[in-house]
Amino acid sequence: MTHYLLTLCFDGRKFCGYQVQNTTDGEKRTVGGELKKALISVFGTVENLAGCSRTDSGVHATGYRASFSAEKNLDDGVVVRAVNANLPNDIAIYECRKVSEKFHARYSVISKKYVYKIYTSPVRDPFKNGLYLHFPHKIDAQVLNCACRDFCGTHDFASFMAAGSKIKDSARTVYEASFYPVCENEYAFTVTANGFLYNMVRIMVGTLLEIQTGKIDLHAIPAIIEKKDRSFAGYTAPADGLYLCEVRYDNL
Amino acid sequence: MTHYLLTLCFDGRKFCGYQVQNTTDGEKRTVGGELKKALISVFGTVENLAGCSRTDSGVHATGYRASFSAEKNLDDGVVVRAVNANLPNDIAIYECRKVSEKFHARYSVISKKYVYKIYTSPVRDPFKNGLYLHFPHKIDAQVLNCACRDFCGTHDFASFMAAGSKIKDSARTVYEASFYPVCENEYAFTVTANGFLYNMVRIMVGTLLEIQTGKIDLHAIPAIIEKKDRSFAGYTAPADGLYLCEVRYDNL
Repeated sequence: MTHYLLTLCFDGRKFCGYQVQNTTDGEKRTVGGELKKALISVFGTVENLAGCSRTDSGVHATGYRASFSAEKNLDDGVVVRAVNANLPNDIAIYECRKVSEKFHARYSVISKKYVYKIYTSPVRDPFKNGLYLHFPHKIDAQVLNCACRDFCGTHDFASFMAAGSKIKDSARTVYEASFYPVCENEYAFTVTANGFLYNMVRIMVGTLLEIQTGKIDLHAIPAIIEKKDRSFAGYTAPADGLYLCEVRYDNL
Repeated sequence: MTHYLLTLCFDGRKFCGYQVQNTTDGEKRTVGGELKKALISVFGTVENLAGCSRTDSGVHATGYRASFSAEKNLDDGVVVRAVNANLPNDIAIYECRKVSEKFHARYSVISKKYVYKIYTSPVRDPFKNGLYLHFPHKIDAQVLNCACRDFCGTHDFASFMAAGSKIKDSARTVYEASFYPVCENEYAFTVTANGFLYNMVRIMVGTLLEIQTGKIDLHAIPAIIEKKDRSFAGYTAPADGLYLCEVRYDNL
């Protein structure tokens, strides 16, 4: 068996996330489902197909990772071209490499980085639908960037986890969080952590935007974390602006 | 009656062009159709709604113009906000101004400018689907830009008009045409003229790309124009990369 790791990019607007879902309505369109079909076309059969993360409906990726095993041993460049030829045009493979048998795209993750894109022009931009959050208000990026520092470090992020999540250990280590201007009327929030709770980035963004609008105090983040209660954090920003942009592994 | 001119932006991917079309299959989704519905919501009734140009299915605009008349006299800013609130999110009004009774968004045009966007990375970019032409080959922008000079001036552009067009006078004046790099792996072709024939920009782009691939000689454009025969020009590049970006009027 040969073990492969793919790096891929997808526009999440027409996907119900990564994970293959079988529902009573029939199969929903997922990145994992489309990828599996393309891999079967190229390799015949594949085993252990694993994505680095479940992603929500509408979330995008510029650096998603997926691993799988197959009997066929193909050159990396051949895999990229052949799998792309079998994928719909809202997913593209950027890189393929061989990994060890023990490697797993999800369990071997050391850190993941997300970016959340926001634009603030008064009139909406038809070309940014579903790709950015439209927040037509003034943003003070320096102030929000200061607030971001309070996310950094190892904390129990239960306040930044979707209500009803079943995860027991909600401690995560945030290595970096920043909020900055990208160009006129465009801003980005980036955050890198050893792992993320369900909706964690979107609740962080909602909290920062409520700091901007004055609904939450600039210095409140440490106290919100301390509460370990979802109701103290800001709203869950929509999936539109969220991109999984980088996944790191040990020994890779 | 008050006479209005709107500047609008639309993502053409889900539109069958601007012009309202009634077909036996029922009404197709058009920019003009959506605009008319939104204007009726705001003004009650509107008259003489006119777009600056028919555009093909899939063609985009960042500076489209439409004029209309209504009994109600509303402030420009109010029109922008109210009409946007009634439009789907792949169209947005950027500006509204009052014009004279004689003004017509199409007949009063002095010049129009189009841009055509191309990207050349070997792997397709899911975020550019339908917004750029993917041409995964090397482009020598300087060479193509030299060829563009031959489009400039007043010529009979019959060779650059879709076969079967019924227009009799195919002379047009091209004021500017250029091909240039935008950023790594991205290029743009811009052309400004007093008017355009059906598919003219897309055939110009197809011709430039066939010059790039060596199928058409670098210096052949004057001879192709001279032939006044569609079969001598290059292929019709897809609508994907085409944007109507600027429309100029006299006394505006």
